[in-house]
Amino acid sequence: MIGAGQLARMSHRAAIDLGIRLQVLATSVDDPAVLAGASHILGAPDETGLAALARGNQVLTLDHELVPIRDLTTVASAGTPVIPSPEALRYAQDKWFARTSMRAAGFPVPDHALVENADDVADFADVHGWPVVLKAVTMGYDGRGVAVVSDRAAAVDVMSPDRRWMVEEMIDLATELAVLVVRRPAGETRIYPVVETVQEDGICRELVMPARIDGRMADAASEMACEVVAVAGSCGVTAVELFVSTTGELLVNELAMRPHNSGHATFEACVTSQFHNHLRAVLDWPLGDTALMVPAVAMVNVLGSGDAASAMASVPAALAVGGASIHLYGKGERPGRKIGHVTAVGQSVDEALATARQAAARLGGDTGGST
Amino acid sequence: MIGAGQLARMSHRAAIDLGIRLQVLATSVDDPAVLAGASHILGAPDETGLAALARGNQVLTLDHELVPIRDLTTVASAGTPVIPSPEALRYAQDKWFARTSMRAAGFPVPDHALVENADDVADFADVHGWPVVLKAVTMGYDGRGVAVVSDRAAAVDVMSPDRRWMVEEMIDLATELAVLVVRRPAGETRIYPVVETVQEDGICRELVMPARIDGRMADAASEMACEVVAVAGSCGVTAVELFVSTTGELLVNELAMRPHNSGHATFEACVTSQFHNHLRAVLDWPLGDTALMVPAVAMVNVLGSGDAASAMASVPAALAVGGASIHLYGKGERPGRKIGHVTAVGQSVDEALATARQAAARLGGDTGGST
Repeated sequence: MIGAGQLARMSHRAAIDLGIRLQVLATSVDDPAVLAGASHILGAPDETGLAALARGNQVLTLDHELVPIRDLTTVASAGTPVIPSPEALRYAQDKWFARTSMRAAGFPVPDHALVENADDVADFADVHGWPVVLKAVTMGYDGRGVAVVSDRAAAVDVMSPDRRWMVEEMIDLATELAVLVVRRPAGETRIYPVVETVQEDGICRELVMPARIDGRMADAASEMACEVVAVAGSCGVTAVELFVSTTGELLVNELAMRPHNSGHATFEACVTSQFHNHLRAVLDWPLGDTALMVPAVAMVNVLGSGDAASAMASVPAALAVGGASIHLYGKGERPGRKIGHVTAVGQSVDEALATARQAAARLGGDTGGST
Repeated sequence: MIGAGQLARMSHRAAIDLGIRLQVLATSVDDPAVLAGASHILGAPDETGLAALARGNQVLTLDHELVPIRDLTTVASAGTPVIPSPEALRYAQDKWFARTSMRAAGFPVPDHALVENADDVADFADVHGWPVVLKAVTMGYDGRGVAVVSDRAAAVDVMSPDRRWMVEEMIDLATELAVLVVRRPAGETRIYPVVETVQEDGICRELVMPARIDGRMADAASEMACEVVAVAGSCGVTAVELFVSTTGELLVNELAMRPHNSGHATFEACVTSQFHNHLRAVLDWPLGDTALMVPAVAMVNVLGSGDAASAMASVPAALAVGGASIHLYGKGERPGRKIGHVTAVGQSVDEALATARQAAARLGGDTGGST
């Protein structure tokens, strides 16, 4: 696995069950997956690092998408499969390519345009109204490279000249959804129940599964996500983020091609977790049942407060919240960095969410979940 | 954790979630927990090994009970807590002490006697009838040191002179139960739903949770297990194995003071697994909810066939059984050795058991579950 963050850490946990060895390409021995005991190689996600990882492994996959497609193509051409394929990964890396391709394939997406400068943004806003959403075309992550701007001056501030930028209409959101789709190369596809996510500043703060939407909307979201993944041609876990507008329209937002924050609660709540299923898909093994075992589950991310010792010291208090399951990533704290998450199962999403929020708040970080 | 077998391996998986470091005292770098990436020290479970493990850790606990109580007492006296305490552990190590202490405390146990030779066994059988059960007083494990003997000559064959032996009446069994009790030093106690186990040659082959017994019997078993643990004074997970005789009597069989084979299905089926709760108890942290999230769960152990490659090669076929979760321990195979287990959740124990048996049979080992 290229990368050794919390997704690799939780994938390692699944690899232990399956009796397989997950080796990670880490940038530091303090990376979360290395701390969890995954076999590791130190190196950057570049041609050299990928070649080193490929030498000892049957197949490569990703903990994050910030890997040059050219280097992935090189390693795949040399004979080590990469899942998702470099071609598919472009849909997750290049937002412009993804938007235009999805529109060409007939999926509803927010209106969008490439912009060279703030004048272009203002022209777009003349048609679609302020505010608009400015996005760096590539290498955005957890809200970095994305900004909502309300006027021309704000656009000037955002558009650093070292990146390519696109602009999008601001959708009036009723809710945001995520659908996890797992595909294996041999063709089998499984879909997890639709997740409802709450984002703040572009970072997923909390989620509930199943989403609080009617069955017709859930079916439409699942079907759309499945078709999107078929168009992208990705294998492994793909998270398809969808918008539901206040007018009830469903639009494709973004794709992530790896285990995803919106699927963390599958560990506790589903017959097969996204991490187990990702590994099974990458190895082209039969996929597992994605059904929820409980009526509802919620997850709240825990963000660092900057006080390194506080989260560990507050674990007992958080565990005292009945029904809460705590996951810590072993990361050094930085304000706003995801350092862990809490899940809780329940008879209803409201009950589960209340439990998860309470435990997350006790972890002492900036949980944000109660806002 | 003293020992690095599959229980340590699965405990490491739980430690990853909790963001804590579990270091194991291993006898080989090929031990299951070391292969899973747990930090390790190589050494024997003796005074030297325990002292080395104690130097870098806050508290010690056990993967197996084959650790000299004297050495545990030494390390505890030197200031590193051992959980379960050496005093409590005697109930799990010394079968004679456990039987006589439990009888003295008022619990029903099979009739028993210390025996020096086959004549003593025959005298016991004159009163209780053949067959009888011969047990080595200490260091028995997975059926080793236990034999059902039907006559004096068989007793002579079993009673190797290097061990102390006791004899017990053979109970006419309706079923065998296991109740997992978790206690933390601060006093909190949690009980898992009663498990029904099927033993063959002294090895647990399969189990279902909840046990197929009526509610009155389940309540009595839970209550008895809880009282037994209170008498033994053990903390962490204690598995209390109980007999149900064909006459409906509940008897205390044996105690295990560590995560236990009968609790493996708690990973998939309970809000908090036995491994998470054991670590929480050892750290004196609040314990987690032990409730089942599903109507039923079953587990079938997979025993090695002696063909090292067969189990891994058959994993895809086993995963194709819908609803089965596979756990492999990374062990080299030896005929009859536990190399993994399969769990399955279901709407009924029969459904879950059928799924788990089917997947375990496909793993190619000697699963035994279908007999």
